[in-house]
Amino acid sequence: MRQSHLFTKTRKEAPKDETAKNAQLLIRAGFIHKEMAGVYTLLPLGLRVLKNIEQIIREEMNAIQGQEITLTALQDKQLWEKTNRWDDEVVDNWFKTSLKNETEVGLGFTHEEPITQMMKEHIHSYNDLPKYVYQFQTKFRNELRSKSGIMRGREFVMKDLYSFSRNEEDHVAFYEQSKIAYLNIFKRVGLGDYTFITFASGGVFSEFSHEFQTITDAGEDTIYLDETKGIAVNEEVYTDEILAQLDLQKENLVEKKAVEVGNIFSLGTKFSEPLELRYMDENGKPQPVVMGSYGIGLGRLIGTVVEVLSDEKGIVWPESIAPFTVHIVTLNTDNEDVLKQAEDIYESLQGVGIDVLYDDRNKQAGEKFADSDLLGIPYRITVSNRALEAGMYEVVERSTGNVTTVEESAIVSGAFLGEKN
Amino acid sequence: MRQSHLFTKTRKEAPKDETAKNAQLLIRAGFIHKEMAGVYTLLPLGLRVLKNIEQIIREEMNAIQGQEITLTALQDKQLWEKTNRWDDEVVDNWFKTSLKNETEVGLGFTHEEPITQMMKEHIHSYNDLPKYVYQFQTKFRNELRSKSGIMRGREFVMKDLYSFSRNEEDHVAFYEQSKIAYLNIFKRVGLGDYTFITFASGGVFSEFSHEFQTITDAGEDTIYLDETKGIAVNEEVYTDEILAQLDLQKENLVEKKAVEVGNIFSLGTKFSEPLELRYMDENGKPQPVVMGSYGIGLGRLIGTVVEVLSDEKGIVWPESIAPFTVHIVTLNTDNEDVLKQAEDIYESLQGVGIDVLYDDRNKQAGEKFADSDLLGIPYRITVSNRALEAGMYEVVERSTGNVTTVEESAIVSGAFLGEKN
Repeated sequence: MRQSHLFTKTRKEAPKDETAKNAQLLIRAGFIHKEMAGVYTLLPLGLRVLKNIEQIIREEMNAIQGQEITLTALQDKQLWEKTNRWDDEVVDNWFKTSLKNETEVGLGFTHEEPITQMMKEHIHSYNDLPKYVYQFQTKFRNELRSKSGIMRGREFVMKDLYSFSRNEEDHVAFYEQSKIAYLNIFKRVGLGDYTFITFASGGVFSEFSHEFQTITDAGEDTIYLDETKGIAVNEEVYTDEILAQLDLQKENLVEKKAVEVGNIFSLGTKFSEPLELRYMDENGKPQPVVMGSYGIGLGRLIGTVVEVLSDEKGIVWPESIAPFTVHIVTLNTDNEDVLKQAEDIYESLQGVGIDVLYDDRNKQAGEKFADSDLLGIPYRITVSNRALEAGMYEVVERSTGNVTTVEESAIVSGAFLGEKN
Repeated sequence: MRQSHLFTKTRKEAPKDETAKNAQLLIRAGFIHKEMAGVYTLLPLGLRVLKNIEQIIREEMNAIQGQEITLTALQDKQLWEKTNRWDDEVVDNWFKTSLKNETEVGLGFTHEEPITQMMKEHIHSYNDLPKYVYQFQTKFRNELRSKSGIMRGREFVMKDLYSFSRNEEDHVAFYEQSKIAYLNIFKRVGLGDYTFITFASGGVFSEFSHEFQTITDAGEDTIYLDETKGIAVNEEVYTDEILAQLDLQKENLVEKKAVEVGNIFSLGTKFSEPLELRYMDENGKPQPVVMGSYGIGLGRLIGTVVEVLSDEKGIVWPESIAPFTVHIVTLNTDNEDVLKQAEDIYESLQGVGIDVLYDDRNKQAGEKFADSDLLGIPYRITVSNRALEAGMYEVVERSTGNVTTVEESAIVSGAFLGEKN
């Protein structure tokens, strides 16, 4: 994409009411726009990052036999009354509205109830199990405060998967598979080194749930991490008994601030019993379906990447989720040969399937480099009088600042990326 | 995808309260699930159709220089008060809710206000224009009645593009381009022969808007169509003066029921004036930006395809938007050679990039063929004892019912599709 075509502009200052680093940087770089606290529009660059993350998650969910659907935001009150989650005294973050005939409806903050209800149409026999169903869908949560930028939204895209199994044994086997899929996801989006499986409180049907916590001072959670084992405990279950049970020693644990980038939860028959999601077993006897839920907030994941990987110059995107892989920056734009060469490189890299942002704007070098650092695209190629004369191009790797000088042929072919990777 | 893996099942009867043919068929075939009137979940097959349509629209919007974003559902009351569209007396289909601090917020039924407000950050000078910005986003409309299945939703995905131009002349040039893009879209999704540009009422800034109306008895609109010219007039502007103005003769017009599958609207400065979206012209003088809006409801488009193209046996998908291109149906599943051959065809067609649904279920032929007709996948290959013995396979084209007998090699390579297309 030509930067002169991109409608968003960078800005020097974030809005005054925006205190979170992630949102400050993302707004300044033109990835998001703040509509109100906790409610952000995704601009072209931000949407590209979201789609990249979505695709990584989709691949990992499909790999464990997930089937993608899209449930609705509008929710039926009567359904949620059956599980006692309609009352604002029980669930404190509902947004509620009503139809023209005064029927009260809610905006889904999660989707256990409607998916359990819907699966009654499709699960009848033990042959119909197991099934795993997921979606990327916009959740609404009426948060009292929303000060963490896009890490805690009132409206945000979530991937939520729900598992439906015959029994506890089958459920546990899938639950363990999902852990691996989740670790793959966090590794692929660039947070692998900072993200740890964390024991957290469970429910009636399981002693623990599992969170995936990424270490960052911007996190709202406190965890106790065993760095050697790579396992953590959320402060909510940080007791002597539980540490003993998990075979963790207090002296090996380090207290860390962290953000929960994903969680997985064994639901047992909490929803299938009240909503009567049952199957006929091999003996023709009705049995409740055993369920689990598995969530990842995509906005939070973007915010976390920004919090963890950015530096004083701006955002640093991992190549896997970057809006573009290469940023071509032209200097000396009054020289037509420079423009022509930049254009050639732009076309030829795109021709081999590389996503390129091409800064063809008529601006000063300082401004262009500052913008480039702020945007955080992994590789920057400078096309200038000097480069043209030498036939050699400077490639700067955003994450390390490493500068390499690359021959024209390796630039045009995209081979410089192969050498680097 | 293996049909035994797909979690949805077909059903003989639609829900009793569902009176629209489109929703009846889509529910019976397992494409959608009804949450409440006008609110439908997209199941795996339905989501595949939606994504195919989305991609066609995206390509056409990108081709006219559109840039994709995602705005938010939650809307700021103060913003909409500035254009006098907050009041329920003025706009009668708002869903409204409130934040914890009692601040009232709305759920967007359209997005002129927030996009105009947002563009103030990015449009300053005549150099920043024109810009075209679009999204696929979930709209909420509190319809009093919702009886047309997925053709009139209370919650639905819409593609809405907004254009920002320097002046009327530039605006009109883009407006004309958008007409061509829209006709391309309706042609590509299979509605080209039934869809006509229709003059409809405009606003303060333009005498007419333009609708794209698809002829179907399921439509809620009445239009008067000149079949020779391929132009229609909505009944709301069907007057002698307007016909004269458009050079249309009453005797050449046929009254038709139709559904509005798209509309384009010149907004002039209706939003840019009250919200102060201005740019500096070449003389350094502030000017209001001239805007247009361009909508297509994706659910409505799916519903319309079903209404227009289905037959007594079920749905008929055009190849461009079908959830799968080929449906392999195995008979004699007790014969391992049949299963192995079906498996080979399944793998090899997927290997050459063809989307295949493989009915590997152990069911009677009659049920499998009935399901296949209901699902509406364009080409069905039957793998059976007889086919295996003959080395020749029956391929049935869903839209015409035409049966051809194809040699094994042309089946396995996918060449039979090339011959047909």
